[in-house]
Amino acid sequence: MSYQGIIETYKALLKIPDEMKAVTLLEGNTPLIPVPAIADQLGGDFDLRVKFEGLNPTGSFKDRGMTVAVSEAAHRGAKTVICASTGNTAASAAAYAARAGMRAIVIIPAGKVAAGKLAGAIAYGADVIQIDGSFDDALSLVVSISEKHPIALVNSLNPFRLEGQKSSAFEICDVLGDAPDWMALPVGNAGNITAYWMGYKQYHEVKGTSLPRILGVQAAGSAPLVLGHPVEKPETIATAIRIGRPARGEEALIAASESNGYIMAVTDDEILKAQKILASSGIWVEPASAAGLAGLVKEVNAGKLNLCGKKVVIICTGHGLKDPDVITGQFTKPQAVKAELTELERIILNG
Amino acid sequence: MSYQGIIETYKALLKIPDEMKAVTLLEGNTPLIPVPAIADQLGGDFDLRVKFEGLNPTGSFKDRGMTVAVSEAAHRGAKTVICASTGNTAASAAAYAARAGMRAIVIIPAGKVAAGKLAGAIAYGADVIQIDGSFDDALSLVVSISEKHPIALVNSLNPFRLEGQKSSAFEICDVLGDAPDWMALPVGNAGNITAYWMGYKQYHEVKGTSLPRILGVQAAGSAPLVLGHPVEKPETIATAIRIGRPARGEEALIAASESNGYIMAVTDDEILKAQKILASSGIWVEPASAAGLAGLVKEVNAGKLNLCGKKVVIICTGHGLKDPDVITGQFTKPQAVKAELTELERIILNG
Repeated sequence: MSYQGIIETYKALLKIPDEMKAVTLLEGNTPLIPVPAIADQLGGDFDLRVKFEGLNPTGSFKDRGMTVAVSEAAHRGAKTVICASTGNTAASAAAYAARAGMRAIVIIPAGKVAAGKLAGAIAYGADVIQIDGSFDDALSLVVSISEKHPIALVNSLNPFRLEGQKSSAFEICDVLGDAPDWMALPVGNAGNITAYWMGYKQYHEVKGTSLPRILGVQAAGSAPLVLGHPVEKPETIATAIRIGRPARGEEALIAASESNGYIMAVTDDEILKAQKILASSGIWVEPASAAGLAGLVKEVNAGKLNLCGKKVVIICTGHGLKDPDVITGQFTKPQAVKAELTELERIILNG
Repeated sequence: MSYQGIIETYKALLKIPDEMKAVTLLEGNTPLIPVPAIADQLGGDFDLRVKFEGLNPTGSFKDRGMTVAVSEAAHRGAKTVICASTGNTAASAAAYAARAGMRAIVIIPAGKVAAGKLAGAIAYGADVIQIDGSFDDALSLVVSISEKHPIALVNSLNPFRLEGQKSSAFEICDVLGDAPDWMALPVGNAGNITAYWMGYKQYHEVKGTSLPRILGVQAAGSAPLVLGHPVEKPETIATAIRIGRPARGEEALIAASESNGYIMAVTDDEILKAQKILASSGIWVEPASAAGLAGLVKEVNAGKLNLCGKKVVIICTGHGLKDPDVITGQFTKPQAVKAELTELERIILNG
């Protein structure tokens, strides 16, 4: 039987309505890519892999939750979905709503959404509205609107989003034959860390797999769960986790502590360095997606984590193509040279 | 056993050196997404699916060939790879070379490469050189350089590229249980149509699957195989197939005619319309990738193709994220509105 998407693959483990028809783009089934060269840089002698969630249909992990949230909304007759977004949720909601024949309204913070993401939401036909405010403002507005009008909220406050996002934990266990010892991931609105922990606990109960320790990583300029209080003006180059009041903050703290892990912060410089390390193993991710590795690097270098003999998984949530400006902004445009063999040889052989 | 990439999966069917170690990012295994709404728009009563090759690790189908070409180059001790590229090959060569610890040199035509693609090549660490000339100029230069210096050519003139690209035909047959009746795909440098036909013929011989009829689609401003002569100044919004002298042109014509299919041209307008149709089913592709559907639409509407009862597959070679400017260029930037409930309700309910 060929692959049918995450609802069909894992429906026995998802709390979803009976008879719900799947609105699917065959999301999930993303590769778990070994990165031995990066493990070596961190001292070696452990198994390090990247769960490359940027290879979902709209380029981010959001598709796992969106297939369930939009399917459920369609199941109960919704004609419109709404979400607040830093970009990835917008593109995903727009794609699945289009597929279901529904209208998608996405509210984004003006000027703070990466180019590739905004283009995606527009391409899939969403009504995109920029507000003069933060992601957190946008989220509280869409909650109010969904309470007053027959419009389905598809942010990760919607429990069906988390049901879908659990599936990545299942896939990791299916590939490794067990849970990893450690799993590191970026933490923004905190729905994903919550969902992974739900998924690992459920597989532990149903299949007897082990439980990982979870390292949640926030950006230093947007680290409410590390600071212990909301951040009014979050700032970071990792726009996907630029969130000052995480909707699932409490659950994230519980997930980290129950798993015997913790939540930490890394600087934008550490994030960009980790992005380069991943790219040098052939995996280009958006800045937020490098936060997990940045956290691992920091803790290993500080002697706080000993990974020797362990299985470690980094979650990379979105493709580098989502945010090309971060790359092009760091480089001067390559100069155009004459289309002439001798000239080209000179440049290449001296290069 | 978990998925190991195309070399490990199909090595018995690939002409590759014994003992060659795979340089892999777990490419391939891309979804074959049903698009019944699009089939309905084309008259219905047939099975239409999109092979979404944009979900390969670097965002395009090029990764299938690159894993084999770079593995083979590494196997014989090459330290440097070179290619000419309209963008997708560049990103793929850069990623696999980085993974293999090799230097990648990519030569691109100045000003004619989509933003997301150039950023990718830079992110993965390639030496990017823009030349004041066309793709065709770039290709003839890299051929000369690879003949004079110990630098491995990884354009699709390299036969190992085609060995890898065959794997998509295998995957389609594995999912459908047989070859489709028709397959439509974009044709630029013509390596991909050649590789698909090789793959289908090989599966036909080895596994007894049927053979599809192939519809190759060029952009009208860059259609040497339709016109019957090279195009000196190819022009099209579909930059990935903006090629006036296809390296595998003869083989493409043979593939089309042996398969009882043909090669045709579509306008940029037809390509952009097909891109919108795909996005409205939740699949955002770069313009070139919409050429296959544009061709189908044109032929069905002209009464030249009757697809009733058939299985039809469209190959979408690259993700929409590769070329966001095509989308954003068609829209005015959404206006930022006040972060205020009443104002937002007014806009949404009138929307």
